[in-house]
Amino acid sequence: MARVQTRVENALERSLPRADIVPARLHEAMRYAVLGGGKRVRPLLAHAAGEAAAGDIDEALLVRLDTVSCAVELIHAYSLVHDDLPCMDDDVLRRGKPTVHMEYDEASALLVGDSLQSLAFQLLAEQPLAAPAAQLEMVKALAVAIGSRGMAGGQAIDLASVGQSLTIPELELMHIHKTGALIRASVSLGAMCAEPMSQAVLAGLDQYARLIGLAFQVVDDVLDAESTTATLGKTAGKDAADDKPTYVKAMGLARAKALATGLRGDALAAIEGLGPRARRLAELADFIVLRKF
Amino acid sequence: MARVQTRVENALERSLPRADIVPARLHEAMRYAVLGGGKRVRPLLAHAAGEAAAGDIDEALLVRLDTVSCAVELIHAYSLVHDDLPCMDDDVLRRGKPTVHMEYDEASALLVGDSLQSLAFQLLAEQPLAAPAAQLEMVKALAVAIGSRGMAGGQAIDLASVGQSLTIPELELMHIHKTGALIRASVSLGAMCAEPMSQAVLAGLDQYARLIGLAFQVVDDVLDAESTTATLGKTAGKDAADDKPTYVKAMGLARAKALATGLRGDALAAIEGLGPRARRLAELADFIVLRKF
Repeated sequence: MARVQTRVENALERSLPRADIVPARLHEAMRYAVLGGGKRVRPLLAHAAGEAAAGDIDEALLVRLDTVSCAVELIHAYSLVHDDLPCMDDDVLRRGKPTVHMEYDEASALLVGDSLQSLAFQLLAEQPLAAPAAQLEMVKALAVAIGSRGMAGGQAIDLASVGQSLTIPELELMHIHKTGALIRASVSLGAMCAEPMSQAVLAGLDQYARLIGLAFQVVDDVLDAESTTATLGKTAGKDAADDKPTYVKAMGLARAKALATGLRGDALAAIEGLGPRARRLAELADFIVLRKF
Repeated sequence: MARVQTRVENALERSLPRADIVPARLHEAMRYAVLGGGKRVRPLLAHAAGEAAAGDIDEALLVRLDTVSCAVELIHAYSLVHDDLPCMDDDVLRRGKPTVHMEYDEASALLVGDSLQSLAFQLLAEQPLAAPAAQLEMVKALAVAIGSRGMAGGQAIDLASVGQSLTIPELELMHIHKTGALIRASVSLGAMCAEPMSQAVLAGLDQYARLIGLAFQVVDDVLDAESTTATLGKTAGKDAADDKPTYVKAMGLARAKALATGLRGDALAAIEGLGPRARRLAELADFIVLRKF
């Protein structure tokens, strides 16, 4: 994992415009938003899915996976920057640092997010990742995953649900959009960098991604309820303070923890057929469910 | 022009998610931001460039041009929605209607813009527009045009220049980014929907686009200084009130008008070699420079 994280950090560093290029302040803020922080869960998933799909891995595949990883991580970073804005979650701390609108200003944070989204699509289109027709499919998959029927739609549902008491299926619908869609795209884009696979294998990977995406969110809710701001690197206890519906609120801490463990088991079962190729995906399931921050 | 505007309006209508699909309020706001307003200058340019590049035009080409037109118009609409936010230009009126954050709320306006950007890339990737490798070039061209070194970068330069006294070259640099990059992309994406052309023809079209983009901005500054809010459909006199650098401020009204006329002449000269194929591009140069709103 550390090896992939280092590769991806270097690739992100190279993909972002240098801070001395005009407009310099915007580029500096984009780098501030992306570099030097974050667990890089989506890149780790993309790499692990590529490895599972390919069986064996060579440097050319790793380079393609780095590109896909940068695209999904730039999207993730953009969503955090916009999500932290005063008109959204209004948060001041992210990854242990002031949020972008606190360190710079609101207008800059808005443009940072907008620019990171465009840069993600630029990366997906400018480097060879697959046969051109398949690569267009990858662009489309990312666009659908993050649009109004994916990630951005999930944030709209999230905003509309403040102060509401959601049922478990309603909570699930929100998270399938808000965090699940990009996690699924990370897995499928990683897999698409490798050789074409059978529909059965792809379906297994997608099922894994769906379950692990939900587990990720359940664990997030547990950590928000149980952690301190210092260990979390972002404001702890914020969901309750903002009166947001969470799994902890909907089912209590103990049942939420049991749900996460159950989802992890189901995710592992979904990739069992892949055998040892899926070892890193299995490790990531543990990483996601057993993490402390 | 009216025929193209109607085609594009219908294509936008079909491309946007229906207002009864979850999350319904977001989809309703996206439709509010895009439909039933605007001169559709960028779609008109894309169609005219496609016609100039192809020589003769058939329904299949028109459909491809509609798709490209939707993509650039969605990007334009997203940029207006974000530009109107309180942390940016803080405007309440757009195309004769309340701006999106006034009609809905700031968070919705943020997500509307984010979602429109994604939808533009989805459209460019999901319909056949050219050979797949050329289509990836189109995705890249749009991404570069609207990112931190294009449109979003121009907005950052714009924000940083409030209260500053810019030289004419500095003003030009700002507008080449802020409005010019998307106008150039509209022309080049339109041309790329047609047959591959000689480098000389492409260079002529790009020169036309560069000049007409600047002319567009100069006329915008003139209209902002000379019009009433009622004819403009957005708040008139806002540049001066906001202490923004404009061509009118930098060179006076008469010289700004003369500049626009000169740029129009240069733009027409750049496409002279294309002959009658470029008739619509020439008409658009007049439409842009002689418009009253």
